Amino acid sequence: MAKSWATFGIDLHLEPAGGGLRRGLTDALREAVRTGRLAPGTRLPSSRSLAADLGIARNTVADAYADLVAEGWLSARQGSGTRVAERGVGAGTVGDDGAGAGAGAGAGAGAGAGAVRGVGVGVAGALPGPVSRPGVPGASPSPEPVHRHSPGFPPPPAPRPLYNLIPGTPDLASFPRAEWLKAARRALTTAPYQALDYGDPRGRVELRTALADYLARARGVRADPERIVVCAGFSHGLRLLGALLRARGARTVAVESYGLDVHWNLLAAAGLRTTPLPFDERGTDPGRLTDQDAVLLTPAHQFPVGGTLHRDRRAAVVDWARRTGGLVVEDDYDGEFRYDRQPVGALQGLDPDHVVYAGTASKSLAPGLRLGWLVLPPHLMTEVLRAKGGIDACGSLDQLTLAEFLTSGAYDRHVRAARLRYRRRRDALVAELARRAPKVRATGIAAGLHVVLRLPPGTEQQALRAAAWHGLAVHGLHRFRHPEAGVEQDDALVVGYGTPPDHAWSGALEALCAALPE
Amino acid sequence: MAKSWATFGIDLHLEPAGGGLRRGLTDALREAVRTGRLAPGTRLPSSRSLAADLGIARNTVADAYADLVAEGWLSARQGSGTRVAERGVGAGTVGDDGAGAGAGAGAGAGAGAGAVRGVGVGVAGALPGPVSRPGVPGASPSPEPVHRHSPGFPPPPAPRPLYNLIPGTPDLASFPRAEWLKAARRALTTAPYQALDYGDPRGRVELRTALADYLARARGVRADPERIVVCAGFSHGLRLLGALLRARGARTVAVESYGLDVHWNLLAAAGLRTTPLPFDERGTDPGRLTDQDAVLLTPAHQFPVGGTLHRDRRAAVVDWARRTGGLVVEDDYDGEFRYDRQPVGALQGLDPDHVVYAGTASKSLAPGLRLGWLVLPPHLMTEVLRAKGGIDACGSLDQLTLAEFLTSGAYDRHVRAARLRYRRRRDALVAELARRAPKVRATGIAAGLHVVLRLPPGTEQQALRAAAWHGLAVHGLHRFRHPEAGVEQDDALVVGYGTPPDHAWSGALEALCAALPE
Repeated sequence: MAKSWATFGIDLHLEPAGGGLRRGLTDALREAVRTGRLAPGTRLPSSRSLAADLGIARNTVADAYADLVAEGWLSARQGSGTRVAERGVGAGTVGDDGAGAGAGAGAGAGAGAGAVRGVGVGVAGALPGPVSRPGVPGASPSPEPVHRHSPGFPPPPAPRPLYNLIPGTPDLASFPRAEWLKAARRALTTAPYQALDYGDPRGRVELRTALADYLARARGVRADPERIVVCAGFSHGLRLLGALLRARGARTVAVESYGLDVHWNLLAAAGLRTTPLPFDERGTDPGRLTDQDAVLLTPAHQFPVGGTLHRDRRAAVVDWARRTGGLVVEDDYDGEFRYDRQPVGALQGLDPDHVVYAGTASKSLAPGLRLGWLVLPPHLMTEVLRAKGGIDACGSLDQLTLAEFLTSGAYDRHVRAARLRYRRRRDALVAELARRAPKVRATGIAAGLHVVLRLPPGTEQQALRAAAWHGLAVHGLHRFRHPEAGVEQDDALVVGYGTPPDHAWSGALEALCAALPE
Repeated sequence: MAKSWATFGIDLHLEPAGGGLRRGLTDALREAVRTGRLAPGTRLPSSRSLAADLGIARNTVADAYADLVAEGWLSARQGSGTRVAERGVGAGTVGDDGAGAGAGAGAGAGAGAGAVRGVGVGVAGALPGPVSRPGVPGASPSPEPVHRHSPGFPPPPAPRPLYNLIPGTPDLASFPRAEWLKAARRALTTAPYQALDYGDPRGRVELRTALADYLARARGVRADPERIVVCAGFSHGLRLLGALLRARGARTVAVESYGLDVHWNLLAAAGLRTTPLPFDERGTDPGRLTDQDAVLLTPAHQFPVGGTLHRDRRAAVVDWARRTGGLVVEDDYDGEFRYDRQPVGALQGLDPDHVVYAGTASKSLAPGLRLGWLVLPPHLMTEVLRAKGGIDACGSLDQLTLAEFLTSGAYDRHVRAARLRYRRRRDALVAELARRAPKVRATGIAAGLHVVLRLPPGTEQQALRAAAWHGLAVHGLHRFRHPEAGVEQDDALVVGYGTPPDHAWSGALEALCAALPE
């Protein structure tokens, strides 16, 4: 169903299976603004009228508008409707592509009187958002520092928003480049030349061996190199599992009430319906697990709400799997990062025959590596490899390098340093909020790369608008709610504190505090 | 349809969609031999009797047996049926996994009286063959040189065959490691940190820009970075195209009469039927293109037969596409390697709106990089990216490194050196054959990494047996024939002369000459 929205000459390709109507609409609008097809100041049709034109729900349009306001592409003011944001200082300026569409993004002007606010964040959108994890949909920081501009010259287009607090990406400026290159040199120097050939469809044995050791030690995973499949990030792994489930005749996958629509859409694209499970203070309630074929969980650190799955419930999930033959998929996206205690071990450790453990380098190192891994029950290996096309999908050099990185101890050192950095940020954020925004409550365990900030009831949209005004890219909790979820969480912001580079962190925190209700 | 072959306790998973019955059977048998479940010397049931047990065609079983004889796992002798090859010197010994299943393969004993014959070739098969290109199904050289063994000690298990002449893999021992590491260092040192984030689903802009320049210059491709999609090798690209075609309601893809079953199987897995086109001395005949939805061709160097597509036929293919809206997929797998003249430019140059150009680093550099690229007609971009899951699938570091490799000129230098190396091998092969096996005729243009050796009628199986005896992994031309192809080529061997490392080449050539009819 490709619909053309003739009013603005925008070719909207809206397909529910291809990322959701809302995302499709958001992407198309963002692209139209970015390329100038929708000029600054243009007034958009009301959500009601556009929804009628497109034959879709009004809420979908309103949500897309809200997203783009939050990202700084559109502005919404009482009485004047929704407009394309004006270019120019302090007016939600939209600059050229951020680095998401390449490295070509230039420097942008600081907001205000030439103040340098650290590295700007360009919301890129040359193409539909590439997010597959707790991630940044097409938004990524621009590569250049923001320069002062001299009076008398028109300000160059400034990337907006200036700070990226959308969860899902670690601090990439702290990627251990020198250590990685060292490991790459060692790996490529010592690898047999056959390592450059078409490889084992499970992935390089060196990496699988290193991962088995590491996962057993650090996450309590019962791993065996023979049962690990390397994949191009979690999204690839989930696609493989979706294909496997569908091939087995599965129809329904239970998911958490709050999560990532990209995951639900991946499963939907495989022909699987997702049904949300209710949850409470002990985490997702497995009592509602009945005849679903599988369940997708984030037991160590629920994304995005932030709790851990209570041990009784961990046991209940495994019981359900044993009783019904259902499959448990454990998304351990940020299991390395727990700040207050030893992280809870992987659920997979309870029953490796019924739980698929999924891990990734996207949070601990960088999403750009496109490296993730599944630890599979033995009876699923053949089918997962068939879904993978019987071929290794990831470059062997990166795999060998990560193996070397793990076995040399560089990975542990990097994770320890990152843990310290993120913990400091989180502590600073919580302390600053307590001082300056006492009505806002930081919730969730001290872990990971994001925190949920609970807001006074009914203030989420307002806070998102204020955040956009203050140059923040940030999402509200409602954005992560499954459409069929019964539980309604309070208004909240989901703040990814891992993403800004170190030198931009204090500015980001300042902007956040300014945007929150006092 | 998973069938259990109780006689040998082998669990045969035979599914036509998962790589073909023949491959499934071949893989299962190889695995059983490799792991020792089928002991050396075991006599296998006759092809007739096993076919009846499994309810499959007798030819399928016979073909699988022939493949495994060619690979050295089984031996077939007049009067004694087919048996699992004996371990031991000179008897088709099967060793541990080759490097295909990891780097763990050990040294093997040389055949004969401790003679060192260069690097041995282990036929690995821990899992179904990972080949996606003119490639080596699970067979790859072992990483260690062959050692002499002292008298008095039992010979360690020797990988067999000793030389890999299966087409599809370049000389990986000549991979430019130092240059690649240099490029990786430059790329990672200068890249903005955003290059490590979730990226543009088309792939890194640096690589797409470098490819657009290179492909226009070297292959006459009308390329634009905006229309290039980086993918994890050709097989990934073909999967994307298969998904795209299927989503558009396509049913049939015309293919060449000879080609790779992995490609046909990939298309079949997408729900597409492949129908072979006839061919003659001017290449594949597009006269039979009617209502097919697409056609997959290797115009510059037909794989495996080895001709180029005549210019009249190139024009006719494009005419067909324009007339019917059919899609042409140009697999330019080894377009860099032409030895006698400037290579024929890409078919895509004739009509970039109807031809998808597909290229790869697997032949010019290494399959392990898992880097390929599609140059797409503009109207297909959105759908291909949707099939790709809206996310970049390849590691950004390798992409940045290849971009640097291309723009710095290192790629051209490497290709020139490789071209010279392969040309010399080809010349030596042709000259040696003329001298020692005058009945055998080398055919196909002077290009690429393989040559077709025409044999006296009815001698292909015999030559394959002799080759196995002489330590060669090599395939017959019949193996590449589409099951529905009308044209029957003469008996021939398809010899990949690119694969052995330099120091093993003369031994491989010697063994080949010894195996051919005088």
